[in-house]
Amino acid sequence: MSPFRTFSLTLLIASTLLGSAALAQEDFSNQIRARQSVMRLNGFDIGILGGMASGKMPYDAKVATEAAENLAAVASVHIDLMFPEGSAAGSVEGTRAKPQIWADMEDFMSKWEALGGAAAAVVPVAGNGVEALGPALGAVGGACKACHEKYQMPKS
Amino acid sequence: MSPFRTFSLTLLIASTLLGSAALAQEDFSNQIRARQSVMRLNGFDIGILGGMASGKMPYDAKVATEAAENLAAVASVHIDLMFPEGSAAGSVEGTRAKPQIWADMEDFMSKWEALGGAAAAVVPVAGNGVEALGPALGAVGGACKACHEKYQMPKS
Repeated sequence: MSPFRTFSLTLLIASTLLGSAALAQEDFSNQIRARQSVMRLNGFDIGILGGMASGKMPYDAKVATEAAENLAAVASVHIDLMFPEGSAAGSVEGTRAKPQIWADMEDFMSKWEALGGAAAAVVPVAGNGVEALGPALGAVGGACKACHEKYQMPKS
Repeated sequence: MSPFRTFSLTLLIASTLLGSAALAQEDFSNQIRARQSVMRLNGFDIGILGGMASGKMPYDAKVATEAAENLAAVASVHIDLMFPEGSAAGSVEGTRAKPQIWADMEDFMSKWEALGGAAAAVVPVAGNGVEALGPALGAVGGACKACHEKYQMPKS
């Protein structure tokens, strides 16, 4: 085979492989941005409540209740829509979601539901003064941590 | 006055003005990112429901219901927490929120609540077949548009 033919054949094989890779790589950017938006909103509300609980922000019963209601609302979403198969770190860019999520989706979802329960429990106490915030937020933080430790890659 | 003294005085005035500007410019990046996350999530859910309504995506009663419930949940949040005074376009970077929002916060909030109502009305029909999606989503789109037209700067 002439060197030129070998080169052409290599190019052909390379472009075929690249083509397949491009086809295999579905675009999950909307789902990834949606789940990151959920996490950002939870962080925003926990930031307000935690700021009050720690005394870094003045306690305000109305704001605390609104933040707690927001947290409970967002922590109630069906997050499965945002975790389609194939959207793990390692398969696509821009995510720290571990492949283990899809290997144990039932456990992952039960951890998400535990957050929903802990968030809902903040709502009735948020307006009752700053003292009640700490323990309620502790349970929320525990639920965040249980899931992130198991299913989220550390920041690189 | 010596030229040096004039120069020193100018420096002093300039640094005082800069100092005040830095104090006046509060950091609203968390609030801005939070409200943009809300809009992104709404867009994500409307994208799923609209994709089904338009036939670009196969209709799936369970997915449609989950997307509608997510839309209703996120459209129920207290968005006032994410629109603090001073966080308008023109005052801070990275937002298209018009200053008019704060001039007529009551109208702005009533438009947000209208979206909440339209979103809640999608939930009971989303699982009943693709035909019901169109009219229900039309009301949602109308609520989005009413607010964006009045209170959001066009993309530059």
